[in-house]
Amino acid sequence: MFVDPSVDMRGDVLNQALPYIQRFRGQTVVVKYGGSAMKNPDVMFGVIRNVILLQLVGIKPILVHGGGPEIDQWIAKVGLEKKVHNGLRVTDEATMEVVEMALAGRANKALVAAIQKAGGRAVGLSGRDADLLIGEPISEALGRTGKILQVNPSILEDLSAVGTIPVVCSVASDSNREPLNINADTAAAAIAGAIGALKLVLLTDTNGVLGNRDDHRSTITKLSIDQAEQMIAGKRAEGGMIPKLEAAIAALRDGVQAVHLINGSVANSLLLEIFTDGGVGTMMS
Amino acid sequence: MFVDPSVDMRGDVLNQALPYIQRFRGQTVVVKYGGSAMKNPDVMFGVIRNVILLQLVGIKPILVHGGGPEIDQWIAKVGLEKKVHNGLRVTDEATMEVVEMALAGRANKALVAAIQKAGGRAVGLSGRDADLLIGEPISEALGRTGKILQVNPSILEDLSAVGTIPVVCSVASDSNREPLNINADTAAAAIAGAIGALKLVLLTDTNGVLGNRDDHRSTITKLSIDQAEQMIAGKRAEGGMIPKLEAAIAALRDGVQAVHLINGSVANSLLLEIFTDGGVGTMMS
Amino acid sequence: MFVDPSVDMRGDVLNQALPYIQRFRGQTVVVKYGGSAMKNPDVMFGVIRNVILLQLVGIKPILVHGGGPEIDQWIAKVGLEKKVHNGLRVTDEATMEVVEMALAGRANKALVAAIQKAGGRAVGLSGRDADLLIGEPISEALGRTGKILQVNPSILEDLSAVGTIPVVCSVASDSNREPLNINADTAAAAIAGAIGALKLVLLTDTNGVLGNRDDHRSTITKLSIDQAEQMIAGKRAEGGMIPKLEAAIAALRDGVQAVHLINGSVANSLLLEIFTDGGVGTMMS
Amino acid sequence: MFVDPSVDMRGDVLNQALPYIQRFRGQTVVVKYGGSAMKNPDVMFGVIRNVILLQLVGIKPILVHGGGPEIDQWIAKVGLEKKVHNGLRVTDEATMEVVEMALAGRANKALVAAIQKAGGRAVGLSGRDADLLIGEPISEALGRTGKILQVNPSILEDLSAVGTIPVVCSVASDSNREPLNINADTAAAAIAGAIGALKLVLLTDTNGVLGNRDDHRSTITKLSIDQAEQMIAGKRAEGGMIPKLEAAIAALRDGVQAVHLINGSVANSLLLEIFTDGGVGTMMS
Amino acid sequence: MFVDPSVDMRGDVLNQALPYIQRFRGQTVVVKYGGSAMKNPDVMFGVIRNVILLQLVGIKPILVHGGGPEIDQWIAKVGLEKKVHNGLRVTDEATMEVVEMALAGRANKALVAAIQKAGGRAVGLSGRDADLLIGEPISEALGRTGKILQVNPSILEDLSAVGTIPVVCSVASDSNREPLNINADTAAAAIAGAIGALKLVLLTDTNGVLGNRDDHRSTITKLSIDQAEQMIAGKRAEGGMIPKLEAAIAALRDGVQAVHLINGSVANSLLLEIFTDGGVGTMMS
Amino acid sequence: MFVDPSVDMRGDVLNQALPYIQRFRGQTVVVKYGGSAMKNPDVMFGVIRNVILLQLVGIKPILVHGGGPEIDQWIAKVGLEKKVHNGLRVTDEATMEVVEMALAGRANKALVAAIQKAGGRAVGLSGRDADLLIGEPISEALGRTGKILQVNPSILEDLSAVGTIPVVCSVASDSNREPLNINADTAAAAIAGAIGALKLVLLTDTNGVLGNRDDHRSTITKLSIDQAEQMIAGKRAEGGMIPKLEAAIAALRDGVQAVHLINGSVANSLLLEIFTDGGVGTMMS
Repeated sequence: MFVDPSVDMRGDVLNQALPYIQRFRGQTVVVKYGGSAMKNPDVMFGVIRNVILLQLVGIKPILVHGGGPEIDQWIAKVGLEKKVHNGLRVTDEATMEVVEMALAGRANKALVAAIQKAGGRAVGLSGRDADLLIGEPISEALGRTGKILQVNPSILEDLSAVGTIPVVCSVASDSNREPLNINADTAAAAIAGAIGALKLVLLTDTNGVLGNRDDHRSTITKLSIDQAEQMIAGKRAEGGMIPKLEAAIAALRDGVQAVHLINGSVANSLLLEIFTDGGVGTMMS
Repeated sequence: MFVDPSVDMRGDVLNQALPYIQRFRGQTVVVKYGGSAMKNPDVMFGVIRNVILLQLVGIKPILVHGGGPEIDQWIAKVGLEKKVHNGLRVTDEATMEVVEMALAGRANKALVAAIQKAGGRAVGLSGRDADLLIGEPISEALGRTGKILQVNPSILEDLSAVGTIPVVCSVASDSNREPLNINADTAAAAIAGAIGALKLVLLTDTNGVLGNRDDHRSTITKLSIDQAEQMIAGKRAEGGMIPKLEAAIAALRDGVQAVHLINGSVANSLLLEIFTDGGVGTMMS
Repeated sequence: MFVDPSVDMRGDVLNQALPYIQRFRGQTVVVKYGGSAMKNPDVMFGVIRNVILLQLVGIKPILVHGGGPEIDQWIAKVGLEKKVHNGLRVTDEATMEVVEMALAGRANKALVAAIQKAGGRAVGLSGRDADLLIGEPISEALGRTGKILQVNPSILEDLSAVGTIPVVCSVASDSNREPLNINADTAAAAIAGAIGALKLVLLTDTNGVLGNRDDHRSTITKLSIDQAEQMIAGKRAEGGMIPKLEAAIAALRDGVQAVHLINGSVANSLLLEIFTDGGVGTMMS
Repeated sequence: MFVDPSVDMRGDVLNQALPYIQRFRGQTVVVKYGGSAMKNPDVMFGVIRNVILLQLVGIKPILVHGGGPEIDQWIAKVGLEKKVHNGLRVTDEATMEVVEMALAGRANKALVAAIQKAGGRAVGLSGRDADLLIGEPISEALGRTGKILQVNPSILEDLSAVGTIPVVCSVASDSNREPLNINADTAAAAIAGAIGALKLVLLTDTNGVLGNRDDHRSTITKLSIDQAEQMIAGKRAEGGMIPKLEAAIAALRDGVQAVHLINGSVANSLLLEIFTDGGVGTMMS
Repeated sequence: MFVDPSVDMRGDVLNQALPYIQRFRGQTVVVKYGGSAMKNPDVMFGVIRNVILLQLVGIKPILVHGGGPEIDQWIAKVGLEKKVHNGLRVTDEATMEVVEMALAGRANKALVAAIQKAGGRAVGLSGRDADLLIGEPISEALGRTGKILQVNPSILEDLSAVGTIPVVCSVASDSNREPLNINADTAAAAIAGAIGALKLVLLTDTNGVLGNRDDHRSTITKLSIDQAEQMIAGKRAEGGMIPKLEAAIAALRDGVQAVHLINGSVANSLLLEIFTDGGVGTMMS
Repeated sequence: MFVDPSVDMRGDVLNQALPYIQRFRGQTVVVKYGGSAMKNPDVMFGVIRNVILLQLVGIKPILVHGGGPEIDQWIAKVGLEKKVHNGLRVTDEATMEVVEMALAGRANKALVAAIQKAGGRAVGLSGRDADLLIGEPISEALGRTGKILQVNPSILEDLSAVGTIPVVCSVASDSNREPLNINADTAAAAIAGAIGALKLVLLTDTNGVLGNRDDHRSTITKLSIDQAEQMIAGKRAEGGMIPKLEAAIAALRDGVQAVHLINGSVANSLLLEIFTDGGVGTMMS
């Protein structure tokens, strides 16, 4: 067999990751899983293989996901109407039933099954399992749309300790153990803060935070909390980016060391962001 | 305070349980949860308190459930039609989506939330989590209605070891990790066999197996495998009882020491069956 | 089998205990064993079954006992004379030999044997084993009648950790490792304080502390330290009750959360006091 | 300080023990404690320091003792009469009470206290604790004088595991948990066999087995089972030596690797027999 | 930041390794370290980074090395003469001193220091440490040149268990604990066999086993034991390759699953051989 | 066998050690090994048997050694010249190679082999293994002669925990992981301080610190830090003793409880110093 130059490079990439692996080993990385990574099976498997590799090098990954499109589809199927108040979904009791079903019964299990198929070991959780997420309604107007009051992360630690990847959907219990609909970015940030995660990675469909919304090459490589707050205040962030920036700020304030916003549909963006010098998205710290 | 006779008796009951607790400690009891225990909140809480007490005296409970009525309701809501073939539900792809949502997303989480509310610690699982249940379709005609080929019970042991009650809904993965709809009695029996359970308890809405279908007082206290097979062959068991008897026989052949069929709606039937001399239902061993 | 109402109630009692078991699990309860529970075999077995059940639900019981009647009987048999000084037994050297034999060689082993017979696992200890109780004589006049200076509870923790019930008789060593005769209520209180027990239960032959000595129904349900001290000062407590109240006060001051004085001869009084809302005796906290 | 020759030799002795310590580490040595070692405080402390040193070099010692003289003394004190049948003590019910008191309440605790005083950690056990020794009466004529049917050595292992020296007196329970009077040599041999001891050491008041009863220098250094049986058959062994030889034979047949009969009153005979090449008594293997 | 195609590929390589990592995790890989990897610092660091990465993904690496050139250099420096008998080094006593110094004192510590510098944790061992390698002289003519009789691998397991990479130089002890000079390929094979290694990797300066000695591109990708034996018998293998093939055969016969002969000077050859489909050298199994 | 008086005394010595063993158990003793104990095989084996015995009674020994004579011999053999600057060895690069070889490759392995031969389990370490000793050159003039900046003792704890005696030679790494030549007394003191040793024992060829250099019987039994500093300042200590006193002072200031200077060539001086009341050398505390 002749050793050609590309072969050579493959090993080099493995070696490049070495100092990062040495530094991050034994730490927890919370990945907010979303966007095209939930819709496109190829992207999903790409991200999942990245997550399994993280685990194999000694990092403890936790996936957190929502599922807006899945929810919308089932709301329509059962003949309910999507209602929005001040840009937030109004979750009446009937909608809450569908939200929980779509998240805990569909999206969550699809993600778990994909990890199992790729050779990993995963268990799907709702925030209601083992009282992981306890919350309360945001306001009467928003119905069962809730905010988080308390995170009990011990079940995540128990599962990580037995080599299992927890996959959490963004449903919480209120104090009466009735379900609440939680924003998934918020849930991921709260979990990352409570478990003392090294990193929170938010998968999006853009190349991180863009300096210019219309130029997908205008990724801002590093962003401070101050800059992020100015972007929100100055309305320079697009709609979907605002809750992500807010979640990122909250996680950093809770002690998470870095938050990464990356494009899940870029192949191996998760590994590249964590294990190479350049990274491929926006890092906040 | 005056000590009246009834007070006296209360403690006596606790004492009666003593030899059973000593004998069963450290063992696993699989409870197939179903019937009115899923529909009536009072019955549900009664059974759940029994399950938590089992755990507190050192027994490891595992709950397995299906959810026919919940499924039927959602099939209707999304405008699908219920199809049956030879008495078994035909699960086409569209129906499978609803089955999984109703079981893993609704019934499972409601049961978990109720255990948490009662002060227990529970985690809901589908048979797809950690490849717990691997199966294949029974026949082409039945679509995604499946049978079990393999049980990987390690995740149940992991959860029991950290003081958590696993709650399993009867959905499996096929080898391609696509979902299958499994009969819950069958799933419970397979899990009980695979984990080497001491007991499998099947909750029903009758007082165990009746000698005379029309007399709810005609409970058969003890039933052998032979007698059960004769009841099935002789069509002396009513419709819903046949899969239960078959599951019971399968579990006993897999090494489960005893199978109990009891009426979940009788208060504390679970504790009474396991911890008192008389029991309240039918015991097969 | 027909399910009759009383059956129903039996399970209910088990369920009533649930929140108490959840709260008390993993904690230590020291039971000062005495009175008719040492003389009447039926009462002894009743109390022992209660103690074993405590252990089975995850509570760590420790029994402490004296044995005045046994001592008196052997003193008479060997031809010694019982001497009392200010209401306390004078223990000369010859008497001390008999005291230690009667307690460590008779009463202690009888109690251990009864626990073994009931299916529990017990080991009998004197306060001299593993230097559990180190003391000194109270005064020259009282001879070997002693008070406790130091408790080394590690052997109790070692035995609890291997599922064994320690049964301790109230003999201590002085610094020269010679035996001392200790009041059993005092020994139980000192052990409860040193081990950080949740509860100290003092078994008596009355229904707890009585408001009116002549009315066995006049149990005082709750008693504060202040009230107990006033009872002692006002001589409203009968003779045998005074050292119990003093031991109770000492234990509470050492951090024991509650002291219960109950009638050991009332069937299941131990379980009822610990696991039901009403209780059957006097609780001090 | 000048280093004189005798100083030199002290260390040398420590070094001589090295290969024996290396070989015996982690193993159990059962010492039948008796004779002058129970009566003479100086001898007692000498033996005890030897036992503690065994433990410090990683050997697990277990002491087993009877107490004939102590029993005889108390039988006389309470006005009972010593009865013998075919050379064995007849233990009627009244005598059994005194036997148990004298052994479990006096001799046992004295030995424990002496170990504690020497800086060791000991717990006294009767064969009734944790069902260590279960037996039955030998014959109706002998009353409560019993033989051993079963040994449950787990409590000995539990105590050794926490650095504690078990001290066992030769009282057993029958199946009804009533006490039995057991020969201490027999008890020690049964325990050594059940726990898989490396060695059983029988302390006597002679220099091991003598070739000539009248010459205390005529120690037989090594003795086979056959030779011991011939000594018994040929009545060449003196009275007290016969049960010792029988116990030794039983222990060897149960798998104990060596039995040593040594003179407890010779200073450090226990250490010398175990840790030096010559030994000071009779070794059977 | 713009995501260019090469970035994309880097992550892909990481992903390619995934199934291999999943399969090999927890297993031991013995690497015979030699040739230019010992002489050229760049090659040395390349191989070491590969070894550390193996460890980080859960594989337990063990390095074994000799050091012919280092030895020759010091033999010359101290004025000794290199002697060879039948192609094997004759190791007289004076030479043995130099061999041990050069291997255990120079080559071994240089390799350990390089691993520490790269962020790994290594401990250098000689086969004399903890009796790892026990051997005897091959023949009188060869002096202290030895063969291996026994491997005691427990120290390797102890070090792996605390996250440390053992680095072993090929010196053994004879039964008198005097040093022996061992062929490093032989030592690596013996260790791999004794520890039940998954793989033995022999680093050489050629691209594995060549079909045509003069064409470095003629690597034989797969080689059976039979084929290897024929190459040796048919003298088709070059001089330095014969002991490697013999070591490979011995390791396979001892149960090692695969032996890899690869060119250490090809960048990342170790990772590529273990973690990619193609591999870069010769695999024997 | 006749028991003669000297036999008696042997056991007594074992008993004398008892209270010391009880007090020192589980603690670490660092022994600076040097002088005739490295040159004379009989002395070496005597000290080693002492060290193994320490380990068998539950003390954790760590040996640290240099090897001046061995170094001088090899420097001469390779034709280098020994250079000294202000009484300290000048270690140029060429000399450093020889120093490391002589220490890590010869003296260290000889000591390890001797321990193995005596039945112990030892592993030889350089200060470069696992970054145990990190230092820097003392001055440009002294070349690679270094001082210690940091001690990473975890590898010593890892080895002690698996019953292995670490044998450390006094070579360190600088931050670039190049070797440094360290004074062995200094290395031993630094290790003793970093690991929180109970004792540091410095083996010399004199009977501890002498009051009168010319009288080997003039051992100073106890020496305070102040007295030692006055001896150094007043030049009353001979040349070789000064670095030992300085190391002793440093260890005491780092929290080591006692430093002992003893004559390694006096048989069993190590055991006698640690385990007997008199001791044989100088104790500083």
